[in-house]
Amino acid sequence: MQQVTDYLNKNKDRFINELIELLKIPSVSADPAFSQDVLNTAEAVKTALLQAGCDTVEICETNGYPIVYGEKIIDPSLPTVLVYGHYDVQPADPIDLWDSPPFEPVIKNTEIHPEGAIFARGACDDKGQMYMHVKAFELMIKTNQLPCNVKFMIEGEEEVGSENLGEFVANNREKLANDIILISDTGMIAKDVPSITTGLRGLSYVEVTVTGPNRDLHSGLYGGAVANPINVLTKMIASLHDENNHITIPGFYDKVEELSQEERAAMAKAPFNLDNYKKALDINDVYGEKGYTTNERNSIRPTLDVNGIWGGYTGAGAKTVIASKAYAKISMRLVPHQEWEEITQLFKTHFESIAPAGVTVEVNPHHGGQGYVTPIDNNGYQAAEKAYETTFGKTPIPQRSGGSIPIVALFEKELQSKTILMGFGLDSDAIHSPNEHFGVWNYLKGIETIPYFYQYFRELSK
Amino acid sequence: MQQVTDYLNKNKDRFINELIELLKIPSVSADPAFSQDVLNTAEAVKTALLQAGCDTVEICETNGYPIVYGEKIIDPSLPTVLVYGHYDVQPADPIDLWDSPPFEPVIKNTEIHPEGAIFARGACDDKGQMYMHVKAFELMIKTNQLPCNVKFMIEGEEEVGSENLGEFVANNREKLANDIILISDTGMIAKDVPSITTGLRGLSYVEVTVTGPNRDLHSGLYGGAVANPINVLTKMIASLHDENNHITIPGFYDKVEELSQEERAAMAKAPFNLDNYKKALDINDVYGEKGYTTNERNSIRPTLDVNGIWGGYTGAGAKTVIASKAYAKISMRLVPHQEWEEITQLFKTHFESIAPAGVTVEVNPHHGGQGYVTPIDNNGYQAAEKAYETTFGKTPIPQRSGGSIPIVALFEKELQSKTILMGFGLDSDAIHSPNEHFGVWNYLKGIETIPYFYQYFRELSK
Repeated sequence: MQQVTDYLNKNKDRFINELIELLKIPSVSADPAFSQDVLNTAEAVKTALLQAGCDTVEICETNGYPIVYGEKIIDPSLPTVLVYGHYDVQPADPIDLWDSPPFEPVIKNTEIHPEGAIFARGACDDKGQMYMHVKAFELMIKTNQLPCNVKFMIEGEEEVGSENLGEFVANNREKLANDIILISDTGMIAKDVPSITTGLRGLSYVEVTVTGPNRDLHSGLYGGAVANPINVLTKMIASLHDENNHITIPGFYDKVEELSQEERAAMAKAPFNLDNYKKALDINDVYGEKGYTTNERNSIRPTLDVNGIWGGYTGAGAKTVIASKAYAKISMRLVPHQEWEEITQLFKTHFESIAPAGVTVEVNPHHGGQGYVTPIDNNGYQAAEKAYETTFGKTPIPQRSGGSIPIVALFEKELQSKTILMGFGLDSDAIHSPNEHFGVWNYLKGIETIPYFYQYFRELSK
Repeated sequence: MQQVTDYLNKNKDRFINELIELLKIPSVSADPAFSQDVLNTAEAVKTALLQAGCDTVEICETNGYPIVYGEKIIDPSLPTVLVYGHYDVQPADPIDLWDSPPFEPVIKNTEIHPEGAIFARGACDDKGQMYMHVKAFELMIKTNQLPCNVKFMIEGEEEVGSENLGEFVANNREKLANDIILISDTGMIAKDVPSITTGLRGLSYVEVTVTGPNRDLHSGLYGGAVANPINVLTKMIASLHDENNHITIPGFYDKVEELSQEERAAMAKAPFNLDNYKKALDINDVYGEKGYTTNERNSIRPTLDVNGIWGGYTGAGAKTVIASKAYAKISMRLVPHQEWEEITQLFKTHFESIAPAGVTVEVNPHHGGQGYVTPIDNNGYQAAEKAYETTFGKTPIPQRSGGSIPIVALFEKELQSKTILMGFGLDSDAIHSPNEHFGVWNYLKGIETIPYFYQYFRELSK
């Protein structure tokens, strides 16, 4: 497929500039202040899909942000690939930690990305990786070698739990019918170590509120005599892990599958350097559940992390106050077989049960989703493997990721098809963090690799 | 002193309106955004003292906000009263919990204040109580019956730890020389139960920062594998109290004086209704150190309270992030004999020592001060007692307060004189809270009572 390389080389500057334009729109789905920008991004995706060569593209309304659906059916008898991605992004805060404005993309060279990386919120997660598929599709269309039918489903609520996607998928099974689902919303181990994500963690995300006295109080007059909601909240959260960093919620581990020694030994083969890991994060040591390695802790084990906490006086200087309320956002990463709704309920029941007298506790579930494991013995995985072998000259390593793409489990249930997670990002891309970026090399490598997936998938589907 | 009552009745509307004007200036010393307002308030206090009858008033510059000093020396051979107060106020946040804007004073009737209460930040703490002394002074001047020399020292940094007052007092011992110091910056038990504060708690206020990874991380990719600064901070704070709510900092209680059963029995005589206390705060139970009553917990026992906590994502919706840093503001109320600098050091040493591997901890002392106990066998206390008996028809109850006025201990050290704490506020006045207010009745009762203190103090000083 010499044409692939030629077309890519001829158009790569345009491919980069188009992505940069898309990144300028602040499509933060979590914050209502950006709602118009999110809608504008959906329109931009529609336009991009039409220009790339889709026959039809629709903006499908939901109870939340719309889903952009586009398709190119060349021959109903050929296999169909459904591409999923999302056009919404994480909030950019803390904004003051960005070296350049999150929605004014700039290309800078880094140690890992000497060819340059695009710095912007969403550069990697997921506008950049989603747009690789749009451009790979254009490339196959313009070079007259699209080997399969293609359907695109690009949503705008992934970062807030894909709350309306389930209903959309359930109501559009025929429209979305496919032979394989392709997603680039994960990472690979390193630029010279391609990997395919075969496992994802589930998620349960809750917000808790501890209420004490009906008003903020003077800490001198009331300190020590009434329950301080912040002190109480810290005690309650602290009690959720025991001294071995096991989670103490009754029933939490009941459905957790213990991997065999063989499976753990296989995982341990993935290249990993603890010193580099610590150096990259500037920490003197790692931390986590006793009895598991770092790579196990962030992939095959469930976790509980506070993602945000606030209460009382947080301004400049000192205020001697006992706050009326204290709050925390808490998320649990779940492994396959843990039911996220059940875990959410276990959390709620337990957390409310440990509230001391003198306060009231409220637990509000935000969203969640199931974990997932991809089998590696199907056409889709093998087509992806061969595609990486072609463009990287190496066999990709199957890898369990700690992240969550809740809708993968949903797709399997509603559409009875498998999902292949071809991620081209790196852990160091700082997704969800200040200075998120995506390597230009990775972006173009994705665009180069995806067409081979289509080619091999068609061959293997014969 | 019929003239006192007559003059008061003739001028009380003006006295109220003058206080309302003073309350309109947002003199928040903790927040640099209000610095010009704080300075304007000092000018307003200077003007008020001159109009009330001081011979000289100066704005004394410090390294922070100025101290307003005014005096009226009628006869060096007569006793001299030094009045201390502060013109700065606490921050108003959380502003959205105020029923009326904090710096737009309004008079509203409440159950406890059927005669009306002035609602505004600083209404009670301390502009209202400080201004009682200015108006009582005017009253004595205008009715030609000022029995003592008077000196006023009104500062603008009380709410941020009086950082520059110590140096000012040490450098102005002669100017500030006096026979008794009079302060109204505390409360009384109830409108029909006058009390004089005989004990104050000390204070140590620190800010802590826990730093984990060098950037915010995706909680899916790193969750469970690196120390989460917020989870760690909650564990560290939670460990500062044991299961009996004793503070676990080594050496913290070493210098705490245990009161005798007799003293505790005497304290227990103060009228207190636990049901009303709980109802007023809307809590189902009180909370605190095992083995002590509510009134002991908030007066004769030291405490540790988190006044503010923050970290991670606190905006709308959900963000699956592990924050790089987590913060808390923590204050300890201390009892007489606990050295606040020593306690601050004990906290710092202990808190740093319990930091787990994977994070670094920083402890920054904000400010602090010593506790104090006033003897009740001196002229000052007895003059105050007789003044209350005259205007309330009841002997005031000596009461230990949980609050802190660190400079009281400083005054005794530098000026070798005792301080009398004649407070006219109520616990329900919500000082440091939204909807702070001060009863019109209490304000006028203070103005009526203070002149009798001067009269009896002169008699008892013969």
